[in-house]
Amino acid sequence: MSDKPSILIVGAGAIGSFYGAILKKAGCRVSAVLRSEYDAVKANGISVSSPLGDLSYRPDNVYRDGDTPEEAPDYLILCVKVLPGVDRVSLVKPWMGKNTRLVLIENGLDIERELADAFPDNPLISCLAFIAASRTAPGVVEHKAYGKLVMGSFPKGIDESCQTLADLFTEGGIKIDLTDQVVGERWRKCLWNTPFNPLSVIANGADTLSILDAEGGEDLIRAMIREVMAVAAAEGYPMDEKVIEQNIEGTRAMPAYKNSMALDYLNGRPIERDAVLGNVVAIAKHHGIAVPHLNTVLVTLRIRGLLESA
Amino acid sequence: MSDKPSILIVGAGAIGSFYGAILKKAGCRVSAVLRSEYDAVKANGISVSSPLGDLSYRPDNVYRDGDTPEEAPDYLILCVKVLPGVDRVSLVKPWMGKNTRLVLIENGLDIERELADAFPDNPLISCLAFIAASRTAPGVVEHKAYGKLVMGSFPKGIDESCQTLADLFTEGGIKIDLTDQVVGERWRKCLWNTPFNPLSVIANGADTLSILDAEGGEDLIRAMIREVMAVAAAEGYPMDEKVIEQNIEGTRAMPAYKNSMALDYLNGRPIERDAVLGNVVAIAKHHGIAVPHLNTVLVTLRIRGLLESA
Repeated sequence: MSDKPSILIVGAGAIGSFYGAILKKAGCRVSAVLRSEYDAVKANGISVSSPLGDLSYRPDNVYRDGDTPEEAPDYLILCVKVLPGVDRVSLVKPWMGKNTRLVLIENGLDIERELADAFPDNPLISCLAFIAASRTAPGVVEHKAYGKLVMGSFPKGIDESCQTLADLFTEGGIKIDLTDQVVGERWRKCLWNTPFNPLSVIANGADTLSILDAEGGEDLIRAMIREVMAVAAAEGYPMDEKVIEQNIEGTRAMPAYKNSMALDYLNGRPIERDAVLGNVVAIAKHHGIAVPHLNTVLVTLRIRGLLESA
Repeated sequence: MSDKPSILIVGAGAIGSFYGAILKKAGCRVSAVLRSEYDAVKANGISVSSPLGDLSYRPDNVYRDGDTPEEAPDYLILCVKVLPGVDRVSLVKPWMGKNTRLVLIENGLDIERELADAFPDNPLISCLAFIAASRTAPGVVEHKAYGKLVMGSFPKGIDESCQTLADLFTEGGIKIDLTDQVVGERWRKCLWNTPFNPLSVIANGADTLSILDAEGGEDLIRAMIREVMAVAAAEGYPMDEKVIEQNIEGTRAMPAYKNSMALDYLNGRPIERDAVLGNVVAIAKHHGIAVPHLNTVLVTLRIRGLLESA
């Protein structure tokens, strides 16, 4: 029995499987709760190919919904998409112990509150993943590039459990940026995601440069970033004007690519519309801030029925 | 030989063929310039089924591009779509005589200037068609409902040639609303078309009620109408606030339907993006009026590559 903490991954898609592999490599016991992939993983474990080497592993326990856990994990890592049709509280509740730290590796804004409210006595660690990885078959994940996590305690600070988890990830071989303002980091990431992701979907999966190169495209992106910044500032996270051009130039410096929401859309998967866009518009409304560009895109997605039922 | 005026239809699709039939019924000589449908119409004439009866006719002359006209027409009626790839001046130039009145039955805003500039000595009559008609095969048109024309001299007034044409259409059996402010009427029609048409396209052909029933849909339509109204007011066509709710209620009072731009999109035909939306945004910019909702929709269409090359 390792003296390293025990880990339970809930939602072992590409992201959960990969970060589980890293913690396994760091010497943790890593178990997983699965749905459709239960049989494949039970039989063959999780296959993870990566520039870091072959990270394939067999979870210590493989559960499915409704199973009774052998023990409450030290860390429960939730990696499901944030969709209105997915009740994340119900999903994690059976597995949470008195001392379980809840870890979110998920996209979007204002996605922690619901869980923090449901489990007020458990530390909550919020993470943003910067990674290119995809699930190519049941239990099979291809890690292509990157992998950094930005990580902090929610709503702010860096508590001991957060520091411990960061050390384990580092030991497993990935880069961790600890922050005592993880919500601010979410806003920072949304400066890019909130304009580019939904626009690419409305444009039926357009890549980054198609968006920027269209007549008026750069200015539309600027206007949307500006609206996100106004809302972030009202929430206590003011940012320097120069991040606007940094986002544009950074995107231009990379080859054209389709972002993860565009890929979800093109593959017929639900999109995290509200986590990435709808919540920003809702917070803007709460502050009385006009966000006409963001709102037009949001309502257009709704008209298209790009709801995000799971 | 009739003493009624001679008519030449340029762009004898559903609209041109139908209004040509009406003028034929009124006793005019009606000829047509055709492209792809030349052979069919030369052989069989134009078939027009209509609630008004069978309006089929054989044009007095059937021309194609490059032909030499036997005589310049008294009225040249231009019914092609307004698309950047279609040079309307070149299209009508060979057929224009010294006394030819140029008649536009076309959608959109700011679509007359180019022709008025090219033919400054010829009266220009601008018409808006309220009609449901479609071309079902080469030379075959199905008129389903309506047919009213709103008509006036450009840029304003009702000159004698306009009155004469109105009388002929009336004699042929359709309703004419003469206006001495036809540009204002275009703005009035665009209050509806400019929001609904492009939104339905972005929403991949959504019908009217899908747009209004989406969360935030009605308010987005209101915001877009309001922006069109602000531009119209700056152009000298102020409108009463109440037209906003009238447009919403009028749309709700009808069964859900797909507008003509949505149908063009769904049938793979080019859309009149700039005539209906781009020109409004350009005029707004000229006046320094912010139209963020309209602009977001316009740029999104551009990103999608829904240019309107013919």
